[in-house]
Amino acid sequence: MAGNSFGQAFRITTAGESHGVGNVVIIDGVPPGIPLSVEDLMVDLNRRRPGQSKIVSSRDEPDEPEIISGVFEGRTTGTSIAIFIRNTDSRSQDYGTIKDLYRPGHADYTYDAKYGFRDHRGGGRSSARETAVRVVAGVVAKKILAKAFGGRVVGYVVQIDDIRANISDPAEVTPEAVEELADGEPNIVRCPDAKAAAAMKERIEQVRAEGDSLGGVAEIVATGVPPGLGEPVFDKLKADLAKGLFSLPAVLGVEYGSGFASATMRGSENNDAFVSGDAGKEIRTASNRHGGMLGGISSGMPIVLRAAVKPTSSIPRDQDTVDRHGNAATISTPGRHDPCLLPRFIPMAEAMVAIVLADHWLRNRQQQML
Amino acid sequence: MAGNSFGQAFRITTAGESHGVGNVVIIDGVPPGIPLSVEDLMVDLNRRRPGQSKIVSSRDEPDEPEIISGVFEGRTTGTSIAIFIRNTDSRSQDYGTIKDLYRPGHADYTYDAKYGFRDHRGGGRSSARETAVRVVAGVVAKKILAKAFGGRVVGYVVQIDDIRANISDPAEVTPEAVEELADGEPNIVRCPDAKAAAAMKERIEQVRAEGDSLGGVAEIVATGVPPGLGEPVFDKLKADLAKGLFSLPAVLGVEYGSGFASATMRGSENNDAFVSGDAGKEIRTASNRHGGMLGGISSGMPIVLRAAVKPTSSIPRDQDTVDRHGNAATISTPGRHDPCLLPRFIPMAEAMVAIVLADHWLRNRQQQML
Amino acid sequence: MAGNSFGQAFRITTAGESHGVGNVVIIDGVPPGIPLSVEDLMVDLNRRRPGQSKIVSSRDEPDEPEIISGVFEGRTTGTSIAIFIRNTDSRSQDYGTIKDLYRPGHADYTYDAKYGFRDHRGGGRSSARETAVRVVAGVVAKKILAKAFGGRVVGYVVQIDDIRANISDPAEVTPEAVEELADGEPNIVRCPDAKAAAAMKERIEQVRAEGDSLGGVAEIVATGVPPGLGEPVFDKLKADLAKGLFSLPAVLGVEYGSGFASATMRGSENNDAFVSGDAGKEIRTASNRHGGMLGGISSGMPIVLRAAVKPTSSIPRDQDTVDRHGNAATISTPGRHDPCLLPRFIPMAEAMVAIVLADHWLRNRQQQML
Amino acid sequence: MAGNSFGQAFRITTAGESHGVGNVVIIDGVPPGIPLSVEDLMVDLNRRRPGQSKIVSSRDEPDEPEIISGVFEGRTTGTSIAIFIRNTDSRSQDYGTIKDLYRPGHADYTYDAKYGFRDHRGGGRSSARETAVRVVAGVVAKKILAKAFGGRVVGYVVQIDDIRANISDPAEVTPEAVEELADGEPNIVRCPDAKAAAAMKERIEQVRAEGDSLGGVAEIVATGVPPGLGEPVFDKLKADLAKGLFSLPAVLGVEYGSGFASATMRGSENNDAFVSGDAGKEIRTASNRHGGMLGGISSGMPIVLRAAVKPTSSIPRDQDTVDRHGNAATISTPGRHDPCLLPRFIPMAEAMVAIVLADHWLRNRQQQML
Repeated sequence: MAGNSFGQAFRITTAGESHGVGNVVIIDGVPPGIPLSVEDLMVDLNRRRPGQSKIVSSRDEPDEPEIISGVFEGRTTGTSIAIFIRNTDSRSQDYGTIKDLYRPGHADYTYDAKYGFRDHRGGGRSSARETAVRVVAGVVAKKILAKAFGGRVVGYVVQIDDIRANISDPAEVTPEAVEELADGEPNIVRCPDAKAAAAMKERIEQVRAEGDSLGGVAEIVATGVPPGLGEPVFDKLKADLAKGLFSLPAVLGVEYGSGFASATMRGSENNDAFVSGDAGKEIRTASNRHGGMLGGISSGMPIVLRAAVKPTSSIPRDQDTVDRHGNAATISTPGRHDPCLLPRFIPMAEAMVAIVLADHWLRNRQQQML
Repeated sequence: MAGNSFGQAFRITTAGESHGVGNVVIIDGVPPGIPLSVEDLMVDLNRRRPGQSKIVSSRDEPDEPEIISGVFEGRTTGTSIAIFIRNTDSRSQDYGTIKDLYRPGHADYTYDAKYGFRDHRGGGRSSARETAVRVVAGVVAKKILAKAFGGRVVGYVVQIDDIRANISDPAEVTPEAVEELADGEPNIVRCPDAKAAAAMKERIEQVRAEGDSLGGVAEIVATGVPPGLGEPVFDKLKADLAKGLFSLPAVLGVEYGSGFASATMRGSENNDAFVSGDAGKEIRTASNRHGGMLGGISSGMPIVLRAAVKPTSSIPRDQDTVDRHGNAATISTPGRHDPCLLPRFIPMAEAMVAIVLADHWLRNRQQQML
Repeated sequence: MAGNSFGQAFRITTAGESHGVGNVVIIDGVPPGIPLSVEDLMVDLNRRRPGQSKIVSSRDEPDEPEIISGVFEGRTTGTSIAIFIRNTDSRSQDYGTIKDLYRPGHADYTYDAKYGFRDHRGGGRSSARETAVRVVAGVVAKKILAKAFGGRVVGYVVQIDDIRANISDPAEVTPEAVEELADGEPNIVRCPDAKAAAAMKERIEQVRAEGDSLGGVAEIVATGVPPGLGEPVFDKLKADLAKGLFSLPAVLGVEYGSGFASATMRGSENNDAFVSGDAGKEIRTASNRHGGMLGGISSGMPIVLRAAVKPTSSIPRDQDTVDRHGNAATISTPGRHDPCLLPRFIPMAEAMVAIVLADHWLRNRQQQML
Repeated sequence: MAGNSFGQAFRITTAGESHGVGNVVIIDGVPPGIPLSVEDLMVDLNRRRPGQSKIVSSRDEPDEPEIISGVFEGRTTGTSIAIFIRNTDSRSQDYGTIKDLYRPGHADYTYDAKYGFRDHRGGGRSSARETAVRVVAGVVAKKILAKAFGGRVVGYVVQIDDIRANISDPAEVTPEAVEELADGEPNIVRCPDAKAAAAMKERIEQVRAEGDSLGGVAEIVATGVPPGLGEPVFDKLKADLAKGLFSLPAVLGVEYGSGFASATMRGSENNDAFVSGDAGKEIRTASNRHGGMLGGISSGMPIVLRAAVKPTSSIPRDQDTVDRHGNAATISTPGRHDPCLLPRFIPMAEAMVAIVLADHWLRNRQQQML
């Protein structure tokens, strides 16, 4: 059944494959009157793009989105917005040799098991290529958050292999610090701790040289979010944010606030005391181990999430596998793969978090009539 | 907007508060002809029930579900099933003193921020009382899985505080081992490693005596699941399972397969090689670091998830907080709270995993017409 | 798949059968702070109740609803509202004789074809008994409309058999005129044209005496509805209103505005000219052949719909049919059936129209952020 | 909130405006392995196309659909299918003069009231241009029906103005008879009663010459539909079919079976007797006044619906209206409008009926596990 839509009030529906004609997103529920241009979309598309630095895939896809509908004279009309990105660099002949082989860690086998056959070119629908249109939708969502409550979503790398960044306050990390180093050079790892970033970059280059790949952890922070977003019971904000992040390729874990570390804490350690804000009336918490959500509803504190991203499955080394008939085989996927997904994962994760927040902001305001 | 429903093909909708009249679930989409009785429901309800052992809440709620509709002459009819559990032990006077205070770690403040006021008695809609009807729906889902593919969902405790269980093969843990110790005594911690279980029990009793609470980690395993469940892109099986688990109270993290540990692994270490099964035609993987899902679609291998559960927020110790007007205050919640949520969390987590799997099994078969 | 829910922002989910334990509705998305009591619910429940007059079914079901959740200290809390109506007068033995026979005009055969078996007692889930909880939800919806924009939904009978009411202006018909005749007697037919009402009453009594039943047409008018409700393309207001009315038992046709009569009109006759309201700025139309909706979106003019209701299928006369094995048989359903459904249909139709309008009012305001 | 999607198991989401870049549909839930080509799509697109005959709009839009995704090597893959139709003949300058005027019978005013501004070019999102992609989705739905149960959906004109066709048996009307006259000439009215068709054609030409437009009634018949499709209560098959037809532009009424005529019938006249089919075991009804649905669920008899279509709102004659500031004005819309919508309405109506049936066929089979 229909699984290509996400969200309720701000709802996206996508289609497209890695090496087909292109990818398209229809965004439904966008408020009218929001300025939107192709230039707006390019900012995050360029951050997701392969070929942007020497530590990511060297594929070169320019990603030229076309706004098909829902925007008139530069502003959203309130009707459904379709955005189309035509595939250009689609060397599908690269994939002919692995047409019948199941790449370890990939969805080749599970798609065949589900559908009986598959578009094998570059992973077809299971390729991360589909995330380009999520990033486009994320740009629209970010605009709603900014307009609605001055909200901002910032993601960055906090761990690659065993190298961990030192982030004193997640809410203070700026988009600039994620994109640029102090010396003005691009921060190609997207880790705002410059020292860790340098070590991560070196590690990535080393492991790529070994014909292998690396995993890591991303942190995504949303600031300015008012209290009250999220619904009781099933559509808790934490539940929808987790679904959004887990829907991204290669994510094996998600946590927020104290996360898995809370397992070894006492209640007296983990609870955040409520305090009254400066003006004596705004209520907040003295610490933020609850990651900005209590009972699944936003508390007004920064929302802090982390996602574990596995090492890229496609590696140049030989791996054991079988073909679709069950015969043993050896596979290697030289291609142009990211040795580590994290730098390009950041804009995708920001997009999903922004989409969930825009959706829940619209959902919440709907019910507040009085 | 409507946030009290979960699932698409197997869809549950719930209502109810901790100290109101009761809780109700409507289950829609259940295939006709499945035997269902109140006795079936009691098995898991008794595992979730407070007062079941000396290490959980001493509240005594008998949980007597009434099947309102959708079952005729002992079998499901295919129409919507409503099940009602009337609240009986509702000492709401216990909560009068905290009517205007925000309990740290609870949803009191966020509900007030969202709705302007709240049913403060025992947490109202935000109370874990609502999970009773999820467990009821989980029983129905488990029956579908058993009938559809002989599937089974087993959950157990793998960590409390820093005590970790030693589980050699998650797929081999039996429901009996979770419920009963070798000596026939009830396994009140629900950890199948008897030695760890004993240490966990001792730790819980010690921390309760200190007026504090403990967190931990649950592992949930689904076996027998055929390959092909889950949808591309947004409704990946991992995404819906994660949403289901994160929708439960107190869950701060979810991972599957190698999870957060994959961050420090190489691709060559984390990938699972495909092999051909005994008969030379069934395809599976030699190891299961992918936790039974690839590209978000089940692979036929056991599905293995873990959830981090924070220490109970309600503790007898004094904690700093504010009242609804922002005035500083001190709160303690003596009551009858669980010193550690994990033992009672297990049936809730199993229920959500079973519900997601039943939903996706029904969704998947729908599309396979040929 | 789940078909027991209706609406998106104001969403109802129901369960229950004619002769089972009872019927329940969960209403999700209701704004917080709306006063709601059992007495509120009784007003429309009494209008729907069998046994209310001598021209309807003589069954006597008191319909005592119990508010299970979502209301605290007399006001809605914003969380899901469950309302339960226990069945009391359930002479299921009446139906034993027709257990294996397919009643003409009923769903007995189609349910068996769909599910393989059915709860045959009184039609089970297909019985109009389920509309009691729709009426309950309609009361809540009407409260939202009244609060949101002073809106009102009034339904009445405009035709029974070939007797047609003369209604000069649908927007001027009051609830009082529908319920009460000029002499203070109850208007048991619910036709505001007293002369037609008298003739209709006589016709109903005559046809009942003949062991037969009658059909008719209901008109439902919503006033005060602001322009802008309804969504482009699929969720047009007219489309959702029609779905709501067609979802009621026995409805074979729905039209709005000039309806089927427009087929014989010219564009120049059917178009309504726009004019500027009294204050020179409010825009409306000089006539209302468009029934209050243009392009599927409300225009600010009264919304006027009509539904054709077939003659009651259950009649005391002998009818030809077959049993579930295909053997020819004769059936008569003496029972306590309505000789004409229209009088009791009115509150059901009002409920569905109010539910759709409340849903679309909440949906529309959600998107208007600027 | 998101209103640009339709269906659940077979789900379409659309975007696009009359004079923007183009229109796109994403079709989700299509079973894998169905052959699909652009040629398949052209059959019904050509029937919907303006400029196809001298009695419809003379606009000339070639409608060249591009299949973006979801089809690989000529067969559907099971993943979401996107189809894009670029606008080519978009003389938007035609509409500059009516930019600030509200055309009677159109959605200009209601869109402005809803969104604050609108894409005025040719009606923007409210234009019937959007139905092109519905027709495309209808082709896919028809393929599913044919494959699933040899089902067929045939629509035709039964009334234009006061000219009524004589159709002896709706289930016997063939697609050929709708498209072609006995002499091999195209049946440009799409009325299978040749005599009525000739009179209708003449009437259309006459009224167009008068600068006016005509309404009518279409009948849509689905044959081969097995019993059991449709869900109890809200998602009755009749309710979803009615919603589908009412979602089309210009539809003011829908009825099925005996429809509004049932209002003047007795129960004994309107009920259809059940009989046993030829083989002594297939159960059907002797007549089909129930239009193929009982209790909202298909009975196995032909499904017969009728839709009332209003006269085209755009007419060359002067009409009174106001501008967006409320000032009185006169408007005429010479353009290239259809003098009667019926001939081109037929493929649109067939598409919506096919989409609903495909959706419900997939939904129904999902639940039948045993």
